[in-house]
Formats: sequence, structure tokens, C-alpha cells
Amino acid sequence: MLPEEIKKFIDEFEKLPSIGPRQATRLAFKLISSGQSKLSDLSSAISGLKKVKICPRCFFVHSEISAVCPICSDKSRINDTFMIIEKETDLMSIERTKKYNGKYLVIGELTKSGVLESWQKLRLNILKKIISDEMKDEKAKEIIIALNPTTYGDLNSSVIEKELKDYSQKISRLGRGIPTGGEIEFADSETLSHSLTRRE
Amino acid sequence: MLPEEIKKFIDEFEKLPSIGPRQATRLAFKLISSGQSKLSDLSSAISGLKKVKICPRCFFVHSEISAVCPICSDKSRINDTFMIIEKETDLMSIERTKKYNGKYLVIGELTKSGVLESWQKLRLNILKKIISDEMKDEKAKEIIIALNPTTYGDLNSSVIEKELKDYSQKISRLGRGIPTGGEIEFADSETLSHSLTRRE
Repeated sequence: MLPEEIKKFIDEFEKLPSIGPRQATRLAFKLISSGQSKLSDLSSAISGLKKVKICPRCFFVHSEISAVCPICSDKSRINDTFMIIEKETDLMSIERTKKYNGKYLVIGELTKSGVLESWQKLRLNILKKIISDEMKDEKAKEIIIALNPTTYGDLNSSVIEKELKDYSQKISRLGRGIPTGGEIEFADSETLSHSLTRRE
Repeated sequence: MLPEEIKKFIDEFEKLPSIGPRQATRLAFKLISSGQSKLSDLSSAISGLKKVKICPRCFFVHSEISAVCPICSDKSRINDTFMIIEKETDLMSIERTKKYNGKYLVIGELTKSGVLESWQKLRLNILKKIISDEMKDEKAKEIIIALNPTTYGDLNSSVIEKELKDYSQKISRLGRGIPTGGEIEFADSETLSHSLTRRE
């Protein structure tokens, strides 16, 4: 009983992450009632994403004329330290701290199985090649594996560490402890142990 | 640090219902990695919605050549009984029961204040005009106010009932009771009272 155009919309949008059939349906009605010019804006906002490039070194997004992204081409950044991050949004959070001045590799969302996808292995191979070609002694100074401190993150960190151990003098992970503003009373004992052994 | 195209996308999509800034950001990265042809599909799925019409009688969506929707123009449906529903999805749920053969008015999402928006008053006025012009004695046979059985739904039902009481021989609401598959033990006492007083 729904017009074909709405069915098509639901069909396309229900497959997107965290949008199911119900949200897609509600979204369709909301969009229709918001008018033609809003529909044009949204449609061209999506088309616009076609112009976004993915850096062939770090796999972060950019829209430079060059193939390589501004972070990778930035001469003022340390070029022998790499941080492996899972998602683009993680990179943005790290950049916001202004405490990291090295390079990145966006490895992409990891499975819970501890097995890397073939395209993720390809990304690691690109990092290995950059290190082999550009670093003296063919080793990076440090690789920081910055995955979430969860069971799956730990599993995947070990897998990635194994892959990269011959390519860096040092491999590290993000420090764990009580978050700023957190309370000792409510910290789980694993976090508390970490904050004790790694006390500052 | 994000490309303009991504900022534009987030800007447009974060305003949509149940999509916040975080989901819009994640969606942008997801879409970019899903490739150019997927982006074209989504973009044209949104543009396609421009073709959807809104029926000037009941305000449901359709894509007929005529201005009026298939439900309103269906001669086999009873034309002196109307159901007031809030959302298009509510109408679809009612249609799925195949137990209702009258006409509709989509009133649109109601506020929690019990005050109708001006465009909602306009919709009620259109219904009133249809009744005055087309019904004998200028009254509908029945108007069913089918809003959610919540505090706000009850409040809004009373407001709408007051508006329409001179335009229908009978005004009713959906029956309340224990839902099929529900358990008496876990039914709240209001529901249970309803199922007792309206026992079948």
C-alpha cells in the first residue's frame, strides 16, 4: 500500500548501521513532510560524499587535490611513530587531545574473532612497506596500538602486535586507569589494578 | 579537520529524528567506505521521495496520478466513518488488520501539551468540511479517535473529540484490554480494569 518511492527508500536505508526497517519508515514520512528543498539538500549531501578521498597511506578521509591526506603529508609531524586506530572517529578524538604528533593507520572496525579481514591485512602490509621503505633500519620508533580497552580490543591488539613486532623498536598501548572525574569506589578492580601498577 | 563534504553531510543528517551528531558522523564514514554506486543509490532514493504526494483529504502518502489517494477514492470503502490516526505507520498497522473499511484522517504527531498545531487544526477543518459537504444531516456516522492509549494520547483524544463532537453521530476510541499473548499477572491495574469493564 506504500508508494514505490517510499518502499525503495526504506529498502536502501534500513540496511544502514543503526537504522532498521522501523526507523527507515519513520524517516521516509518525516522527510516527505519536510518538503522538496530539504529532500534536495539531503540528496546532494549524500552525493557530495563521492568527492571524499581515502588516503592510501593511513586510510583516513580527506578532500585534498593530492592523493595523500594532510596528516600524512605534514612535514612537522613525527614520521617514525604510528598509531593504529580502529575508526575515523577514534582518530578525531586523539587529534583533539593535541598530544600526539605522529602518523596513523586506520585499520577499520575489527571483528570479535581476533581474525583480521583481508582488506585489514592489506592495510597492515601498506604500513609495513612504508616502514621498510622509509625508516632507517627498516623499523619504526614506536607503534601505538590504540584499540578500545575491552576483551575484544585486547584480543585484536595482540593479533596486530604479532603482525608488527618486527617493524618497530617499541610497541605500546594506551594507558589504563581511572578516568578523570571517575570515582575509586565505582572503578572495577581491573581498572584499579592498572591504575595502581601504572601509577604516575 | 574533516572534509567539507562530510561536515555538510553531518550538518544535514544530525537534525533528522533519532539521528544525532554521533550517528550522523558514523553514518558518513560508513557511506564513504560503501562506495560510489551505493552513494548514488541512496541519493536517488531520497530524491525519489519528491514524487510522493500527500492526499488533500486524509493526508496519507500516495503516488497516484490523481490528487486523492487510493483509500479516499475507493468506492468500496464506507465513506461516512472516519478514523483519526496520528502517524502514517499507525494507518498501515490498522490496514494490516483488514478489520476497518472506512476512511482516515492523518492528524500528524501531536504535542504533549494538548494544544493542536495550526496545521493540525487545518486538517481537522478539512475533515469537517468533507462531512458538512458530503454527509446527510452534515454528520458522519462514526469517528474513531485512534491515538495511543497513553496519558498524552488521552489528553489529545479529548481535545480532538471536543472539536469533532458536532460532526458525528458517534465518537469512539480503540478498545483497551490485555493484549493477545499477555499475562494477567503482569497487566497493570488500569489495563485490567478496562478488560473487566469491557469484557467480551
